[in-house]
Parts: sequence; C-alpha cells; structure tokens
Amino acid sequence: MRIYVDCQGGDNAPKAQVLGALAALDEYPDLELVLAGDEPSIKALVGDKINSSRIQIEHCTESISNHESPALAIRQKKDSAIVKGMLSLREKNVDGFVSSGSTGAVLLGGMLRLGRIQGIDRPALAPLIPNGKGQFLLIDCGANVDCKPEYLLQFAAMGEAYMKIVKGVKNPRIGLANIGEEAEKGNALTKEAYPLLKNSPFNFVGNVEARYITADKADVIVCDGFVGNIILKFMEGVAKTLLGIIKKELLADTLSKIGALMAKPAFSRVKKLMDYKEVGGAPLLGVSGSVVKAHGSSDERAFKNAIGQCVNMVKGDIAQAIADNIQSIKEV
Amino acid sequence: MRIYVDCQGGDNAPKAQVLGALAALDEYPDLELVLAGDEPSIKALVGDKINSSRIQIEHCTESISNHESPALAIRQKKDSAIVKGMLSLREKNVDGFVSSGSTGAVLLGGMLRLGRIQGIDRPALAPLIPNGKGQFLLIDCGANVDCKPEYLLQFAAMGEAYMKIVKGVKNPRIGLANIGEEAEKGNALTKEAYPLLKNSPFNFVGNVEARYITADKADVIVCDGFVGNIILKFMEGVAKTLLGIIKKELLADTLSKIGALMAKPAFSRVKKLMDYKEVGGAPLLGVSGSVVKAHGSSDERAFKNAIGQCVNMVKGDIAQAIADNIQSIKEV
Repeated sequence: MRIYVDCQGGDNAPKAQVLGALAALDEYPDLELVLAGDEPSIKALVGDKINSSRIQIEHCTESISNHESPALAIRQKKDSAIVKGMLSLREKNVDGFVSSGSTGAVLLGGMLRLGRIQGIDRPALAPLIPNGKGQFLLIDCGANVDCKPEYLLQFAAMGEAYMKIVKGVKNPRIGLANIGEEAEKGNALTKEAYPLLKNSPFNFVGNVEARYITADKADVIVCDGFVGNIILKFMEGVAKTLLGIIKKELLADTLSKIGALMAKPAFSRVKKLMDYKEVGGAPLLGVSGSVVKAHGSSDERAFKNAIGQCVNMVKGDIAQAIADNIQSIKEV
Repeated sequence: MRIYVDCQGGDNAPKAQVLGALAALDEYPDLELVLAGDEPSIKALVGDKINSSRIQIEHCTESISNHESPALAIRQKKDSAIVKGMLSLREKNVDGFVSSGSTGAVLLGGMLRLGRIQGIDRPALAPLIPNGKGQFLLIDCGANVDCKPEYLLQFAAMGEAYMKIVKGVKNPRIGLANIGEEAEKGNALTKEAYPLLKNSPFNFVGNVEARYITADKADVIVCDGFVGNIILKFMEGVAKTLLGIIKKELLADTLSKIGALMAKPAFSRVKKLMDYKEVGGAPLLGVSGSVVKAHGSSDERAFKNAIGQCVNMVKGDIAQAIADNIQSIKEV
C-alpha cells in the first residue's frame, strides 16, 4: 500500500508531517510513502532512512497556503503537493492521500482532480469527534454550507460506510442533528431530510437534539456543513472556555490549588479522552479514493494517526463501500 | 409596576413560580403581581401574604402543556394563563409577563395576542448565556428556524436595545455567528446578512467563528433560530459531557478523589458562573411589551430572577427602545 503525504501544509510543516510519516512506516510494515514538498527539507528530516525502498520523495516547486483562493490555487498550482497527490491517486500510482494543508484546497482538489463517486453530489468532510465514551462521525463539517435534503441522505450513506469499514461499528446508528426529537421538528432542510433518512436502508435513530450530540446517541451525526462547522468549532470553544474557568477557579484559593495538583492524573486522562490528536484527521468522503485531511495544527503524533486512518480506509476500500451504500439507497 | 405571572407552566409549577414571585415582591418594593393559574393551589402557597394589596390571583380553568400544538392551544384555550396574560399586557392592565410554560405557546401568544412592534417581522427568543466573564445575548434561539437576511438585522436591533437598556452595556458589540471571520464566509443567509449588519447604525464587530462564541467577542450574537437553538442546547450538552468526564476521572484514583474534595469550593464557583438560574430567562423580543420566557426547569430562584429581568425590561421600556432602533435602521 502506497500513501501520498503532503509535507507542505500545516502549522508545523514539514517537520510534523515527515516525522509522523516515519513513525507510520514503523507501525505499518506494508506501508510505502511518497513524501511531497520541498525535497532538501524533507531529505534533512528523513535522515538515515533516505535509502529505504519504502520512501519516495517528490519535489514540489509550488505550495498552496490557507490564505489563497482554493479554486484558483487548484487550477494554477499544478506543481503543488495537493494537486500532484490527487492526480497520483486518480492514476492509481498511490492508494491514499493525507494532507494537513488548506481544507478548501484539499476539498476542491478532491472534487476536481480526483473526482466524485458515482451518485454522490457533494463530497463531505467528516471528523471523528470524541464524546468521552467513544467517537462519533460528524458529517458534513464545512464542505457544503447550503444543502439539499438528498445531500444529507448521501452523507448518511458515506458516514455509515466509514464507521462500518474503518471503525468496525456493526450497525452504525445514524442521527440527524436537529432542534427537537419529533419528526416534524426542525428547519425546512431537516424536515425534508427526515423522511429520506427514515425510508433509507440505514439504521436511522431519528433526530438528535443538540444537547445529546455528545451523549453517544448515534455513531454518525448528519447535518449541513454550516451547522456541522458550528458544532465542531463551538465544541472546541466551549471546552476551552469551560476548562479555562475551571483552571482559573482552581488557582483562586490555596486549598483548591493543592487539590488540583493532587488531581493532576485525572485531568491528564480527561485531556487524553478529549484529544483530537488521538483521532487523526477528517476523512474527505465521497471522492474516488481514500483522502484524509489532518488538522492544520497537527503534531507528529496527530499526523501519524491521520496516516493510520488513511491506511484503514484503503484496507476497507472506503470508496467501494460508499458506492455500495449509494446503490442500496436506490434499491429501496 | 404590575407583572403577570403564569403559575401554570414549568416542571416545578406552581410552587417555584409562586415562591419565586413572593421573593421578587420582597426584592422590588414597587412591584405588584398577578398570579395566574389554579387559585386554590396558589392561595395555599401564598399563605399569609394573601391579603397584600400587591398580589392579585387570577384563576384559570385551562392550561397549555408542552405536548400540544401551540397554534391550536393559543386559539382554543382562552382561559389559560398564557392567553389571558398576553391580552392583559395588550390592554395595559399589566406592564410585563413572565412564564416558564410552553415556549411555542409563549411565542405564538406574544405574536398573535400581544402583537409585534412595527417594523419587526419576527419576534425572537434571546437567552443570555454566561461565558465566564459575563454574558452575551444569543438571538434568535429557536423562534424562527428559517430566516431571511433582514430578520437577522432586526435581531441585531432587538439585541442591541436589550443589552443597552436592560444590561447597561454602553455600545453593545454585535457579532454574526459564522464559520469564518472573513466577510465572504458562510452560507447564503450569513453572506447576505453581513452587508446589512455592516451598513447598520450598530456596532457590528463582524463574523464570530463558533470557536469564539463563548470568548467574549460580542455582547449580542445574531443567528437564525435553528443555529441558535443548536448553539444553546449543544453548549448545555458539551458542558454536561465534559463535567461528567471530569467527575468520572476524578473519582477513578484515590489521590485525584482527595484532590477533588479539596478543590470543591472552586468547582462550586464554576457551577455558579455557568448557572443559567443566575440569569433568569430568555426575553421574547420584538413583541409590543415586556415578556420573559423562563426555563421550564426553573426553580424558585431562577423564576425570581426572570421576574427581575422583566422588571428591568419594563423600567427601560424595551419595546420603545427596539422601535427606536428599527427607526434608526431606516434612517441609514
């Protein structure tokens, strides 16, 4: 198995990407990697392993930043890791692609250079989110801010396949993020999406009220990309605010301060449970191949886990599983 | 000043409502109350104070539950506290109305029986949300799930008036809940609402990404009611999940357990900072009067604070302040 690694994008590039990639090589004996980016920098980081037959370095003369138009960049920057990686994947020179670069560019590159699975209107970004007990897949998370009801059904098909194939969940529970539990609750979009999901071949568990999104009511939470992005980012914000308040109050009196010191192991466990770095990245689902968008702030460990996630997507042939699910919708 | 109190709705009715009302009477010397609901039950709770000239009891033979259609209930249940209260407010027999009953019925009762302020298309529910430093107003929060851009501008006008008049914020910062900071980010609705807000007479601080919603970037956060409801309920859910995980981990080893006991005062302060009961209820803004929807699970203290909130709305003449803001939009 061969995975294309974008070593250009992300806050800690290329170090976290290259070192994460080397760690992944140690973990997966069947893995081969194409490390794409600035060749001299990558070579310096790879060090002694440069002669490994499992590593190929692809020099790129252009790179895509977060601050430029993804549409223009994908069209013009043909010698960037994102464009070259997507084309390599389409040509089947590699089996998967991992990037912590511009989300918009990965998304558009996937749609325009790699292509969509037949029957999928809109590929979606779908991060796994920790809820303390396990993880749920939130789909879509920003790729499609204005959705039609049938997109949400397709998101369910993609999320179902992912949780089954990659996470080994037997009969993934599909929930629709909504403002009430009853079928008739919601906005125009969710009201129309509900019967589509209800009549689908999937294990639809109904509307999931926002207060229960992190309460392990579903393995896949379906929503439009605007709402999904709000949920994803707001979760981060609330957790930060809450932990900030707790920290401040713990330091405000001596007894609490000592207590907090004693409880440090517990707080470390909480941190680990809620840590996105354990999870890896967000799969880009609905494109014709295994693509993972890692967090821009990924460190070595997070990036290694994103590659591991891509390995599992390739092993399970996620694109085929999604195509099968789309077929099963048509047969209902 | 005379406030109509619905003693029928809510998980702890009528006890929390009546005792909360009596506590409010002690706190506000100028306050008079109409306590509406089942007369014998209210009388029993009022006890010795029954002869006070500041208390009037209005018996209601009907009540509206959370489980019935608000539209039908408002039309048919003419002898319910919500319908009678809204009519009393319209007739200026009272100056304000407080209820912890059905949100839909309070909303529809306000729109249909009390009426809207001129220039307001859609009244909105706008809870104050603690962020650790202070509070921000989230508008709308569920009254209007599908919005037009101009509704969001009207929400800004209402929220601005509320924070100025009731909370004493000098030049309230208005933010638009969005998925990116740049003006061109967002879905169709927020993209169109942005220039309206930008060109308004209000102190528009731009888009507020969801991760910064609780970071004190704005005093008023504007969004459609679907997104607002998701934010409101998700905040509750995340806080609960996170505190649950922390609690579980604190009890998982002996040292942490002792530490947690020592840090108890700090955790109590955190709880108080994040407690909606301190805040009161959500004002229903845009209707021709001062209306507060208290949380269904309000206890005595929360309900007392909701009445206090209504007192401040009456004192500041919130409906007039909103009308002035709507006028100022037209003059731009």
